[in-house]
Amino acid sequence: MTQKSLHEFGMIKRLLAPLTLGVPGAFELKDDVAQLPHSAYGQVVTCDQIIEGTHFFPDDPLDLVAKHLVRRNLSDLIAKGCRPRGALLTLAWPKAWSLPRLALFIKGLGEDLAELGDHCPLYGGDTSQTSGPLVASLTLIGEPLAASHAPILRSGAKPGDHVYVTGVIGDAYLGLEGRLGKQSVNDLKACQGFALAPLPTPLAMSAPIAHYAHASIDISDGLLADAAHLATNSRVRIELALDCIPLSSEASQWVEKSDNRVDALLNLATGGEDYQALMCVSAEQSEDFINQAQRNGTRLSKVGQCWPGQGLTISYLGQVIRLPKKMGWSVSF
Amino acid sequence: MTQKSLHEFGMIKRLLAPLTLGVPGAFELKDDVAQLPHSAYGQVVTCDQIIEGTHFFPDDPLDLVAKHLVRRNLSDLIAKGCRPRGALLTLAWPKAWSLPRLALFIKGLGEDLAELGDHCPLYGGDTSQTSGPLVASLTLIGEPLAASHAPILRSGAKPGDHVYVTGVIGDAYLGLEGRLGKQSVNDLKACQGFALAPLPTPLAMSAPIAHYAHASIDISDGLLADAAHLATNSRVRIELALDCIPLSSEASQWVEKSDNRVDALLNLATGGEDYQALMCVSAEQSEDFINQAQRNGTRLSKVGQCWPGQGLTISYLGQVIRLPKKMGWSVSF
Repeated sequence: MTQKSLHEFGMIKRLLAPLTLGVPGAFELKDDVAQLPHSAYGQVVTCDQIIEGTHFFPDDPLDLVAKHLVRRNLSDLIAKGCRPRGALLTLAWPKAWSLPRLALFIKGLGEDLAELGDHCPLYGGDTSQTSGPLVASLTLIGEPLAASHAPILRSGAKPGDHVYVTGVIGDAYLGLEGRLGKQSVNDLKACQGFALAPLPTPLAMSAPIAHYAHASIDISDGLLADAAHLATNSRVRIELALDCIPLSSEASQWVEKSDNRVDALLNLATGGEDYQALMCVSAEQSEDFINQAQRNGTRLSKVGQCWPGQGLTISYLGQVIRLPKKMGWSVSF
Repeated sequence: MTQKSLHEFGMIKRLLAPLTLGVPGAFELKDDVAQLPHSAYGQVVTCDQIIEGTHFFPDDPLDLVAKHLVRRNLSDLIAKGCRPRGALLTLAWPKAWSLPRLALFIKGLGEDLAELGDHCPLYGGDTSQTSGPLVASLTLIGEPLAASHAPILRSGAKPGDHVYVTGVIGDAYLGLEGRLGKQSVNDLKACQGFALAPLPTPLAMSAPIAHYAHASIDISDGLLADAAHLATNSRVRIELALDCIPLSSEASQWVEKSDNRVDALLNLATGGEDYQALMCVSAEQSEDFINQAQRNGTRLSKVGQCWPGQGLTISYLGQVIRLPKKMGWSVSF
C-alpha cells in the first residue's frame, strides 16, 4: 500500500471517529476490538451489505448509498421489535475513488445514525482497498423490547391474527423502474429517492411490534415474498388483499393509469426494498396495537388475515386471484 | 436475480446451517436477526474482511481463503484476552463462480470454526452476488476473560514490562515473497501455507493474556508496526531486539543465507499477517505468565522491554539500529 492510501485510511478513522459519540467501548476506534454495552438479556444482531452494481448504480450519490445500507439493517431490527445499540462497518473501498467520495459516504452514514439520537454509536469495523466495486457491510446490535426479551420472529403468527403493514409499498419499485427508464411516473423524483434510500419503518414502531406482534418481518424481498415467509415459518395461511395495500399518491396514480390494475399492484407488491414492517397481531389486541402505533405517528394498514392452513393466498376486491410466479427476491440468510 | 442464483442462495443456507451447531439464537438461519447468548458483562466484537486481489490471489484455494478470514478475526479476539462466542458472515460472491467453489469456501470456514469446539457457532449473515471480486467479512463476538471483564487493550503497558511474542514471526512474509516469485526459500511449500492461512495464536492463550498482560495486540500489520502501536497507545518506549525474534527453521535458514542479516530480519519483522500475539507483562508476573502459557503448549519468546519515553526503538546484538521507513501495514480501525 502506498503512503497516499495509508493517509487515506487515517482519514477514514478521523471521519468515522465522531460517529462513536464518545462511547467508552469504541476505544476511539484506536483498538482492534470494541466492547458493547452490557445488556441484561441476549443482544440481537443483524448484518446486511450493499454492493455497487448489485444494490445500487455506480453513479448513485454515495450519501444515499450509505443511508440505504443503514436503513436495510435498521429495518430488520425494528421489524423484530428491537432498539439499536451500536454499529460495526466494513468497507471494501475502490482503489481509484477520491477522498471527497469517501467523505460523502461517511456523511450519509453519520446523518442516518444521528437520526437515532444516541442509540447507535459506531463501535468499529474494517476498511480495505478493492480493485472491484464498493462493498459495504453493516452489523447492527440491538436490544429486544419484548417482555420475553427475544426478537419477534417470522414464526409465531396464529390463525385469526390480523396482518398489518407500516407506511406505503411500491415506491422503491417505481423509483427503480424510473431509474431504468422503464416506467414514466408522475413524480419520478420522489420515487427515485425511495429507490436509492427508502425510508424505513420509524424507530418508534419497535415498541408496539415488541408488545403486540405474534410474528413480524421487514419487507425487503417484496410484500408477497415476505408474507409467504411469515406464513411458512408460522405454519398458517395468510390471505392478503391487494386492494388494501397502502400506496403513495404517486403510486396510486400510476396504478390508476395502468392497463391492468391487478398486474400493476402485483408489481408493487413484489418489487422489494420497501423496508416497511409486516406484522401479525391478534384480533383482540389490534385496537391497542393501532392506537400505540398511531400515537407515534406511524401509518398502519390492515392488509390481510391469518387462517388455518399454509402458504400465501391473495385477493382483489374480494376475489381470490393467482399468485404471480415471481413473489420477490431472496438473498439474505 | 435468476432462478439459478436463487437456488444458489438456498444452497448457501443449507451449507451454512450446520455451522450454527443448533444454537437456538441462530434460529436455523431462517430469520432476519440472531440473538446472541446472554453475557454477564459487555461482549467484545471485532470484524475484518478479506478481499480477492487485496488479501489473496484469485487462484488461492478457497478453503484456505476462508480459514484466513477466520484466523485474522480470531487472532484479534485471542490477543485481547477474549474467548469467541459466535460469528456472523457476509459474502459478496462473484456471479460467475460455481457451487463447488462456494462449497470449498464453506468447508474451510466450517473446519476452522470446528477447531473452536462449541465456542463459535455461526449466528447469521448476508449473501449477495457481485460483479467484482470476492469480498467476505466476518464479525466475531467474544467474552473477555480478564477479571476486569474488559478486553486487554493497546494501552496499559508500563515501563519495566517485558514484551513477549507467541509462535514464530515472518513465515507469512516468506510465503508471500515465494508466491510472488521474489525469494527462494528452502521449504517454500510450508511458508506458502502460512501466507495463505497463517496459524494464529492458540485459543488457550486467551486466558494467560487476560490474566497477566497489561497491553496486547495481534501482529497483523507487522511486528514493528504493531509494537509501535502498543508504545504509542501505552505512552511508553518499547525496545525490541531483532535477534530475539522467534523464527521457524525455514525462516532461520533464509536469514542465515541472506547477504545482510539485519535487513532480512527487518523484512520478517515488517511483513505482517503473522497473527501472533505481542504482549506486555510486568517483570514480577512474567514467570507465572510463561508457566501458564507453556502449560498450554504455546511457544513464548521475550523480544523486548518497555521503558519510560515514547515510540519504538530496535536493537541487534545489543546495538541500537535505525528503524526502517516502512514498519508494516495499517488498514484496520
